[in-house]
Amino acid sequence: MSYRNASLPPKERVQDLLSKMTRTEKIGQLVQPFGWKCYRKLEDGTVEVTEAFKEQLKAGGVGSLYGALRADPWTGVTLETGLSPEQGAEAVNTIQRYAIEQTRLGIPILFGEECSHGHMAIGATVFPVPLTIGSTWNPALFKEMCRAVAVETRAQGGATTYSPVLDVVRDPRWGRTEENFGEDPVLVAEMGVAAVEGLQGDDLASESSVMATLKHYTAYGSSEGGRNGAPAHIGLRELHEVDLYPFRKAVEAGAGSVMPAYNEIDGIPCTSNRYLLHDVLREQWGFDGFVITDCGAINMLVNGHNTAATGEEAVAASLKAGVEMEMSGEMLGKYADLAIEQGWMDEADLDLAVGRVLEMKFRLGLFERPYVDAKHAKAVIGQPEHRQLARRVATEGIVLLKNERATLPLTRKISKLAVIGPNAHAPYHQLGDYTSPQRREQIVTVLDGLREKLSAEQTEILYAPGCRVRGEDRDGFPLAMEQAIKADAIVVVVGGSSARDFGEGAIDLRTGASNVTDNSWNDMECGEGIDRTTLHLTGVQLELVQELRRLGKPLIVVYINGRPITEPWIDEHADAILEAWYPGQEGGHAIADILFGDVNPSGKLPVSIPKEVGQLPIYYHSRRTRGKRYLETDLSPRYPFGYGLSYTTFEYRNLKVEPAVIDTTGEAVITVQVTNTGTVAGAEIVQLYVSDLAASVTRPEKALKRFEKIEMEPGETREVAFLINREQLELIGLDLQPVVEPGAFDIIVGPNSVEGLVGRLTVE
Amino acid sequence: MSYRNASLPPKERVQDLLSKMTRTEKIGQLVQPFGWKCYRKLEDGTVEVTEAFKEQLKAGGVGSLYGALRADPWTGVTLETGLSPEQGAEAVNTIQRYAIEQTRLGIPILFGEECSHGHMAIGATVFPVPLTIGSTWNPALFKEMCRAVAVETRAQGGATTYSPVLDVVRDPRWGRTEENFGEDPVLVAEMGVAAVEGLQGDDLASESSVMATLKHYTAYGSSEGGRNGAPAHIGLRELHEVDLYPFRKAVEAGAGSVMPAYNEIDGIPCTSNRYLLHDVLREQWGFDGFVITDCGAINMLVNGHNTAATGEEAVAASLKAGVEMEMSGEMLGKYADLAIEQGWMDEADLDLAVGRVLEMKFRLGLFERPYVDAKHAKAVIGQPEHRQLARRVATEGIVLLKNERATLPLTRKISKLAVIGPNAHAPYHQLGDYTSPQRREQIVTVLDGLREKLSAEQTEILYAPGCRVRGEDRDGFPLAMEQAIKADAIVVVVGGSSARDFGEGAIDLRTGASNVTDNSWNDMECGEGIDRTTLHLTGVQLELVQELRRLGKPLIVVYINGRPITEPWIDEHADAILEAWYPGQEGGHAIADILFGDVNPSGKLPVSIPKEVGQLPIYYHSRRTRGKRYLETDLSPRYPFGYGLSYTTFEYRNLKVEPAVIDTTGEAVITVQVTNTGTVAGAEIVQLYVSDLAASVTRPEKALKRFEKIEMEPGETREVAFLINREQLELIGLDLQPVVEPGAFDIIVGPNSVEGLVGRLTVE
Repeated sequence: MSYRNASLPPKERVQDLLSKMTRTEKIGQLVQPFGWKCYRKLEDGTVEVTEAFKEQLKAGGVGSLYGALRADPWTGVTLETGLSPEQGAEAVNTIQRYAIEQTRLGIPILFGEECSHGHMAIGATVFPVPLTIGSTWNPALFKEMCRAVAVETRAQGGATTYSPVLDVVRDPRWGRTEENFGEDPVLVAEMGVAAVEGLQGDDLASESSVMATLKHYTAYGSSEGGRNGAPAHIGLRELHEVDLYPFRKAVEAGAGSVMPAYNEIDGIPCTSNRYLLHDVLREQWGFDGFVITDCGAINMLVNGHNTAATGEEAVAASLKAGVEMEMSGEMLGKYADLAIEQGWMDEADLDLAVGRVLEMKFRLGLFERPYVDAKHAKAVIGQPEHRQLARRVATEGIVLLKNERATLPLTRKISKLAVIGPNAHAPYHQLGDYTSPQRREQIVTVLDGLREKLSAEQTEILYAPGCRVRGEDRDGFPLAMEQAIKADAIVVVVGGSSARDFGEGAIDLRTGASNVTDNSWNDMECGEGIDRTTLHLTGVQLELVQELRRLGKPLIVVYINGRPITEPWIDEHADAILEAWYPGQEGGHAIADILFGDVNPSGKLPVSIPKEVGQLPIYYHSRRTRGKRYLETDLSPRYPFGYGLSYTTFEYRNLKVEPAVIDTTGEAVITVQVTNTGTVAGAEIVQLYVSDLAASVTRPEKALKRFEKIEMEPGETREVAFLINREQLELIGLDLQPVVEPGAFDIIVGPNSVEGLVGRLTVE
Repeated sequence: MSYRNASLPPKERVQDLLSKMTRTEKIGQLVQPFGWKCYRKLEDGTVEVTEAFKEQLKAGGVGSLYGALRADPWTGVTLETGLSPEQGAEAVNTIQRYAIEQTRLGIPILFGEECSHGHMAIGATVFPVPLTIGSTWNPALFKEMCRAVAVETRAQGGATTYSPVLDVVRDPRWGRTEENFGEDPVLVAEMGVAAVEGLQGDDLASESSVMATLKHYTAYGSSEGGRNGAPAHIGLRELHEVDLYPFRKAVEAGAGSVMPAYNEIDGIPCTSNRYLLHDVLREQWGFDGFVITDCGAINMLVNGHNTAATGEEAVAASLKAGVEMEMSGEMLGKYADLAIEQGWMDEADLDLAVGRVLEMKFRLGLFERPYVDAKHAKAVIGQPEHRQLARRVATEGIVLLKNERATLPLTRKISKLAVIGPNAHAPYHQLGDYTSPQRREQIVTVLDGLREKLSAEQTEILYAPGCRVRGEDRDGFPLAMEQAIKADAIVVVVGGSSARDFGEGAIDLRTGASNVTDNSWNDMECGEGIDRTTLHLTGVQLELVQELRRLGKPLIVVYINGRPITEPWIDEHADAILEAWYPGQEGGHAIADILFGDVNPSGKLPVSIPKEVGQLPIYYHSRRTRGKRYLETDLSPRYPFGYGLSYTTFEYRNLKVEPAVIDTTGEAVITVQVTNTGTVAGAEIVQLYVSDLAASVTRPEKALKRFEKIEMEPGETREVAFLINREQLELIGLDLQPVVEPGAFDIIVGPNSVEGLVGRLTVE
């Protein structure tokens, strides 16, 4: 059987295997049932596969399983009923063994998992969310993180992940804002490439690699009204310039899989958009992996988009557009045969799809190494090196928004420190969406982090939750005030929560006591499906901050949340403000490190923070004709894209463009000198923007093209050099193709999107 | 000279004339300087043309003049320095005579005027703004109004108007919302056709016709963030379905002129968009008039859009795309010659443009009848019939949003009526943007209207302004409360203002005395360039209403304003709410008619009114995948599109679709019985929506296709019949062409966009 011959090229093995398969077996390869439903956990911690799963295997096979180890309210799997890393690895082996040994052709199952910021399984390291990662502006660090995620995931048999999320987020009302790297296509693209390289490694078949799935293809971050999955109103040129760009770069980096978005673009659902899935993805970009739908997306063609009247039409429309596999698999399993019988599609359409899926299975080495080593799983999952990495990503991703009179860093000599707020000690609130429940001791809250940091000091830490994230309950105000009044400084941790209503734990507002097994709370105001009409703090959090401010003590506001917050009162009255987004399990350590200056903050905003919701959409990458002002306010954000403070200061000098004139295929080197003019070491993210002064189509007033994070001792000067060539100068022309046009370009290098030195480059 | 031979077809006359013209003379025909600058008013009320104008005529000619009679702060022309209707007619004759007699070829000038809701000249009738007109859902009435506007305009020599505005408004933050007929393409299209038929009449050359200019072509109503002229993010299919539709219908109705919008669409400024101006407009639709830019739009290609590096490039790009004339004419006059010399465009491009302009001049009869009769002007401008018409449009356009416990209509027996609020007696506030200052006695405020209405009654009217539209001044509260406390019912008139800061007049808040010559006030919060981030009432108006509510008396809130207002408190606490938008000079009569039941309100909303600004965009014409809810609220508007109450009630019964099955070229008749089930006569706007259940592209959940206004006595039942054919069923297909696809359609007939009877039509 040549398909078993590992020395043959994958394509040959595919042809051989395909020739041996029945139509039913082929269809089976394209379906992906829910993994957590295909087994039962036994008393001894092992699992047995269900009868239904056996039936499905017998009836035609199961190409892939989704979320075999996923624990959350949706799966119904809890910390108590779920599997430990070791058990999980064994469970996946059991399922895989059954599939291989009990089917005619022995095709291994592809286990697909959610790993956007850590494997969504019990015990896995929970890294900060992508919005925090975007704030690091450090793709190399993120790549390292992705290696760790891949190691932890593959150790339990997960061979593909449904990440990175490469949506360019343009409306913070959207509950999935936290899942994105930001508003800029180049920043998102750099993170996307890092993800592909980090997740996939050098060899997809290695035990430390998982296949990346780029999603959501495309314009999912530009949905109408910030409503999840709503139509994207966007023209083709902007689509190529903004939303497709990160996907293109990540495909060029070798991504193995792509997921179409739920939304439609200009009347065509992404799931059945042949222009996107075939013309652009395969023909223009040469993508050679496979396309998997989002969960239930084919069904949505019949119920929602209504571009198909029946299931068979929907299945045929998807496959003929370029879909290969269906997450959940309900429609494909049910209607693919009928679609062929009725002539909506051909057997050849099916073969093409199955071939592409099988090819990735060969490239992933699943035939040669279908099983995993549970001891290895136990050793690598959640290992200390990964915890350290999670802490580092969090510290680099925290953005210092305000720091009046050097309120921060705090001194260790502080006698009494009040730590107040609903997010100061709510473990699940800091993890973000797409995380499984984790053991309490795995998560370091701000209170935990500060206690550890100050354990050797004389400092007394005075904690009170104050209030909940949502709701009008002010019962915690008296304790909060009682604690704060005794303190020398107040750290108040407010924000949001994407913790699904699973064991986020209740807190007794009057005493501050936590009860992590009381699951009656739901403070969720962010996450998938939780879109908002305002960007204010929910509940009585602002009121709590205002009450604390009355005490006249140094007040540091820490935000732990999933989307930009607009609270002008806090912007004006807080002494210092940190934005951490959801910083992951090590968030408390990271925030403590920043608060006490053990790490100098270096994060920069990957999104613009507006002054009010009525300014939306707001993003720096806009056209010169965007307008001048509203009656109530101008068009500038409260905090601009690329903005972030440090405990030191940096000065930019001597911008040079060499040569100053190039031809359309030429390149120039831009150099600038940056000096740490403060008294402590620090890191600066040097940003290069290009402004095309005139072109055949309109251009953004400025567009980020390069950035580099540099660390410098006090007084140190470093020269940073950026290469500018075709890629940084091109636009999407009238014919929708990239082109470099002669003309003048301003080259702006600076610390954020509104400040910088300006040079001139002329293209002849 | 054959071009002077009126018996020859216009195209032959054009060829002859063109053959006699120098390039300079040709360029002269494409420019349109500001009309108010080309003359000086003399002591005796006549005018003399300026030396600069003479120079320009000598140097090459002047094809057109913009706003020769426009008075407003921009022109600097005031009630005192401006011209009466008779003087205006004579002035235009003087200018025209000079142009004809002092140039080699004697080509008459085309006078272009703003007449969106009445000629923007002193003394002309000021009709309600388009948003009020849209609320009438009565195109026949609007056509009648347009005849009146045409008569008044042409009487002073104006031969073309820069209206109708056919933008489909999708963001009420936009300050020009008031200038539009609404959010629905079919409603806008019906009004557009009525405008073309009404303005142009049967014969463009008649003394009661002006050429219509359709604007702003296109997607100007979908600008980013509701910011005037900002980019429209929209795909081509939606563009055809929504924004282009009204233009197509109005072009088919014979519109003589089209104006490209300031904005860009997907990177291409409308002013240089050959796809829109040539492929669609001329080739697909067969447009045979000419295209005139918006003011300064060619300059914007160099400074703003930056799609041209120089003036000559910008001029060539516009002309080659399909522009014929430039409003203001700065760029064309300066750079057209250079553009030809440098090869950016050809002489043929110039000839094509000039030929189209000249052809319209021939069709307008300007060569045969270049002068007007000042006595006729005096007789027709502002005549009583036109005042009556303005009053009727306003009464039909006022929407009753709420009427608890039959608070309205008020009884004439009321003893004391308080009339409070900044818009109760502020004449200019009710006129809207694009109006000239008018004599005080020409404008009927709400206070005026109520005084006249109740002049024969014993009713005491107690007036107080209460506050200004903008600003924090509460000095008027005491008088307002003093008056209201004495009254049996309170009418409070709040809202907005688009009155440019010319003589809107100051009001002494403490006494209520008006000082119309005090021009120091500026309460403008709407109008061109005044976009907003919130839809709340400005200033302390809400507070005033809240204070009045405390008195516990019947409280009727009347809105006079230019865009949807979101004030949930008022929605909840007012006894009755009327939305009048800007009802024009007769607004006070119209509102008084409605308040006292002399007219039963019949207006329906042409836009959705949201609950809060964070819900935007909100429009009924949305896709099924628009989402389900926000955390804070659902997606439904506070008041839906098509909504409006009456003093009577209507019941819908017996919806029939006959035949129920048709082929793609067939037609069906939809009938429904509507009964006036109340006790007074009233008019109902019966609305028919189509819901396409499945199609090759996504469709709006429902789309307005037909509507009819019917008047009924109490107890009367009428059957309404609508024809449905290809046009109501077609969609813009994958190839961007209109097509009718087989399938099932729900036909919904009801009183607004959220209620109705449902029938089924199947297309085979």
